[in-house]
Amino acid sequence: MGRWEPDARGRMIRAAIELFTERGFEQTTAAAIAERAGVTERTFFRYFSDKREVLFDGSESMQDTVHDAIVGAAAGLSPLDTAIVGMVAAGEVLADRREHAVRRADVIAANASLRERELLKLAAVRENTTAALRERGVTEPAATLAAHTAVTIFGVGVERWRSAAEPVDVADCIADAAAELRELT
Amino acid sequence: MGRWEPDARGRMIRAAIELFTERGFEQTTAAAIAERAGVTERTFFRYFSDKREVLFDGSESMQDTVHDAIVGAAAGLSPLDTAIVGMVAAGEVLADRREHAVRRADVIAANASLRERELLKLAAVRENTTAALRERGVTEPAATLAAHTAVTIFGVGVERWRSAAEPVDVADCIADAAAELRELT
Repeated sequence: MGRWEPDARGRMIRAAIELFTERGFEQTTAAAIAERAGVTERTFFRYFSDKREVLFDGSESMQDTVHDAIVGAAAGLSPLDTAIVGMVAAGEVLADRREHAVRRADVIAANASLRERELLKLAAVRENTTAALRERGVTEPAATLAAHTAVTIFGVGVERWRSAAEPVDVADCIADAAAELRELT
Repeated sequence: MGRWEPDARGRMIRAAIELFTERGFEQTTAAAIAERAGVTERTFFRYFSDKREVLFDGSESMQDTVHDAIVGAAAGLSPLDTAIVGMVAAGEVLADRREHAVRRADVIAANASLRERELLKLAAVRENTTAALRERGVTEPAATLAAHTAVTIFGVGVERWRSAAEPVDVADCIADAAAELRELT
């Protein structure tokens, strides 16, 4: 990225969300995203393999965030609380981009192939969270049960954060979902 | 299905699992499955849209089983216990086909696109279970939390049932997983 393209990645992501919202995902081309962001199509494809991947940018670094938070969590936490530390860390990554998260969720909800891609991303978070717990010595089936339960809590908490009428704290939403799940069990 | 083709569907499913196990999924054609099952390729395609769908035969009727068990469960059960009734009903469908379930799981584990298809099927079970709880009047977020937690329990329970050295009861495995999850929370 040269000095004439400050935050090209961010501009492309914002342009893509705008265009997906205005025209729909199917009707938006990579060329249109590049044009709106003020970059060449070639630049676009240096950052993203296709227009769909713009919506999943940062997935891998979020996986690293979850992994590192779990592996580095305080000793003595229960497996579920340890997994929730990872979910809160993932939530904090989203925290200052609520409007983006809302518009992104709307774009994904409107398209079956994007919904599938999002479900597979969540499945990868489950597997990654399970693996991180096992790294800490959590045995099966506790690792799988705690990791999958934590991702359930994450999904419900983030959905509440996204759809709240007033801005709320994402970590609080995750904690509330965890409390509600504990009540259910 | 004519009188000369008793249980053609079952024979095609068994032939497919045999061939996927012997040669691998990628290396097996619909024509080879039809030949092994003693049916024409045209018959094969009257039952299945492609070779992959042989592994997911019965998914829709299992969704109906889960839905009907939840909607018909005893009044007064908690949302999570209601969802688990649905999971046990799904488990009972598998119960008398353990060897098939084991070989099917091995075929799926060996192929990335089949793993994705299986993850999407589980996601559909989560959604279907959530919808069935809502039909019973369970509100959000309890419906989503209970449904997703029940599917987590189902996954761990069925995996234990499949991998047990001695045949065990699938309903017991699901109940054990539920007890372990309750301990974790």
